[in-house]
Amino acid sequence: MIKYSRTTPEAEQQSRILALQQRLEKNDVDGVLILQKVDMFYYSGTAQQGWLYIPVQGEPVLMIFKDFHRAREESGLQQVVCLVSPKEIPQTIAQFGCSIPKNLGLELDVLSVNQYILFQKIFSGSNMIDISLQIRLQRAVKSDYEIDLMRKSSHMADKVAAKVPDLIKEGMTEIEFAGLVEAYARSLGHQGLVRMRMWDNDLFYGHIMAGPGAAVPSCFASPTGGRGVNPSIAQGPGFDLIKRNEPILVDYIFVLDGYISDHTRIFSLGSLPDDLLKAHDAMLEIQDMVKQNAIPGSITGDLYEMMISMAEAKGYKDYFMGAGERRIRFTGHGLGLELDEFPFIAQGQKLALEKGMIIALEPKVVLPGKGVVGIENSLLVTQNSLESLTTFSDEIAIL
Amino acid sequence: MIKYSRTTPEAEQQSRILALQQRLEKNDVDGVLILQKVDMFYYSGTAQQGWLYIPVQGEPVLMIFKDFHRAREESGLQQVVCLVSPKEIPQTIAQFGCSIPKNLGLELDVLSVNQYILFQKIFSGSNMIDISLQIRLQRAVKSDYEIDLMRKSSHMADKVAAKVPDLIKEGMTEIEFAGLVEAYARSLGHQGLVRMRMWDNDLFYGHIMAGPGAAVPSCFASPTGGRGVNPSIAQGPGFDLIKRNEPILVDYIFVLDGYISDHTRIFSLGSLPDDLLKAHDAMLEIQDMVKQNAIPGSITGDLYEMMISMAEAKGYKDYFMGAGERRIRFTGHGLGLELDEFPFIAQGQKLALEKGMIIALEPKVVLPGKGVVGIENSLLVTQNSLESLTTFSDEIAIL
Repeated sequence: MIKYSRTTPEAEQQSRILALQQRLEKNDVDGVLILQKVDMFYYSGTAQQGWLYIPVQGEPVLMIFKDFHRAREESGLQQVVCLVSPKEIPQTIAQFGCSIPKNLGLELDVLSVNQYILFQKIFSGSNMIDISLQIRLQRAVKSDYEIDLMRKSSHMADKVAAKVPDLIKEGMTEIEFAGLVEAYARSLGHQGLVRMRMWDNDLFYGHIMAGPGAAVPSCFASPTGGRGVNPSIAQGPGFDLIKRNEPILVDYIFVLDGYISDHTRIFSLGSLPDDLLKAHDAMLEIQDMVKQNAIPGSITGDLYEMMISMAEAKGYKDYFMGAGERRIRFTGHGLGLELDEFPFIAQGQKLALEKGMIIALEPKVVLPGKGVVGIENSLLVTQNSLESLTTFSDEIAIL
Repeated sequence: MIKYSRTTPEAEQQSRILALQQRLEKNDVDGVLILQKVDMFYYSGTAQQGWLYIPVQGEPVLMIFKDFHRAREESGLQQVVCLVSPKEIPQTIAQFGCSIPKNLGLELDVLSVNQYILFQKIFSGSNMIDISLQIRLQRAVKSDYEIDLMRKSSHMADKVAAKVPDLIKEGMTEIEFAGLVEAYARSLGHQGLVRMRMWDNDLFYGHIMAGPGAAVPSCFASPTGGRGVNPSIAQGPGFDLIKRNEPILVDYIFVLDGYISDHTRIFSLGSLPDDLLKAHDAMLEIQDMVKQNAIPGSITGDLYEMMISMAEAKGYKDYFMGAGERRIRFTGHGLGLELDEFPFIAQGQKLALEKGMIIALEPKVVLPGKGVVGIENSLLVTQNSLESLTTFSDEIAIL
């Protein structure tokens, strides 16, 4: 018997399944086979190894390879069976009264090619439909249960930020300092893994970097990069020393019960040069501008352009969200069970904000040779505003 | 300018490219497009975001989206260009004198379906061939450079094990203890991320669990499971307390410059019951038996059966490598840049050991309600034996 402080409530699971079924109905999809661990957890409450079939109507069938008993305990779904091979899926769902789908939805954005080929054989009479867009659109809008969890996760992120002054010391390496922050986060129940949907992208907690190191660009889709400890990782903290009078970027993610909180704070041992302080204030003003203008219905691409215009007007055209040609073309992103959920506050995005969406808004200035300043908060879209779930002071913390 | 303590030597990269080209020749493949970060790092020395084309003959072309300047510094390859879109790949490789491949190799075991569809359009005249088996077979046999790195990584793993007595205290939660071990590992340069090739499998450092908690099965393909901190993770350390007179499993992975060392040691605060001590000794005997018998040419499936037979003869039939129906059917696995490399010491495997392979051999006994004992070492296949790269004592450390 596994005792967790929290499992997904049965009613929450049922409403998620129903909302997906409505999307299937509209898109002429007869059933979906959920394979990815995160989607499996979202729809079933368990991340055990297996396959979840959700028909357009009726009860889903959760087929578990390992571990069946845990899945039974963790999931509120009623139809849970033990299964050895995916080849048995069609006959298993038939036993539960589901007909073989004419149009079968699969997560083609994340599924591997060899798995796809296998499922084409198993469901040889079905058309394979990419259902990932519908899943991502659904997951972009959070339920009250999810909002509550992300509030708790953000509270933990605030606690980690408040602990930084006790942990940081001049002369430490970035990686040494990062390790202490991570250990503290773990003691609060941080699950460690930060999940991303984007193929083959990985992140370890986030970015802790000191001074100019934070401004080093990397492979990662982020305004900040970092040297990292080696070229196989090539991002995040490395062996640079923490010095006085440099901005120390703490862009570290908390994950509580699967749910992510993403925020960034700048610390400094001693004062910072005026140009960095001024740039930080400019980023806070951009954040405020978005908070004053964004409401349900706001188009995410428009919000992006407003931020870019304001950054340019303030003289940060070439340093906003990165320096150089490959600076990123977004200023915010949705988050939840994954770090890169819908919506994206990005060039050309047509998606409108909806009540219940949660976005990490991150106006940042990257000054090569000097460092990174700016802000990031996890913001909830409410009826008429954006509410920050992270509440640690936005100002630079001079220690 | 990024300064790393180590980048892959140019000669090492060239020999890896040549060895792959020989495999392409034999398998009638005209060229390979490498997309996955780990394979990219293996063949080019950089893990920056981009695409690597390796023709069956001639120089490879490394096309980088982000960050180009870092890729130039990190990679010893000569032909490195900046590229914005994968649509430009055919014309770019043509500019370097490569003809459009009739048979194009792709990593179909890891590539996502939507990427595959994109590349089918970009290379509309080419046959798509799964090249992953050839890549994995090549990577299974380590070069002297890789062996040296894995020796260094194992030395770090030994240092972490030696630090455990300073970090562990009765009454701590598993996760709190794990955080301290992780922080120490980070201070030694641990990169954090442990990479796996198996789709949607993730692991955070490894498994640290106390007493019966280590015997809880999970979704993870491992003899041990663990409660984990929540059902979205459902493996590894959780909130159970560390108590006296219980086996504390420390199966924690070190990763140095991308290269993994995997080993397991058992600690205990005070003495352990005789049945656990006896079971641990039995696992050491099984390890010794394999060390005495395994040489280049040994069939991995045969080694597995020998271990199973010996465990059964010693009375552990139902508890060796897990308890219950879903206990795992392997006793060891290759490792390198990924945790699940070839070869697998597993049921039915026909692959023979070769000089230069490195395997993590992990005979373990899982006793529900009591805990886990046993051993794991990273072993190098030499001319006439298995050499343990991890050297911390195999005995249970009674503290």
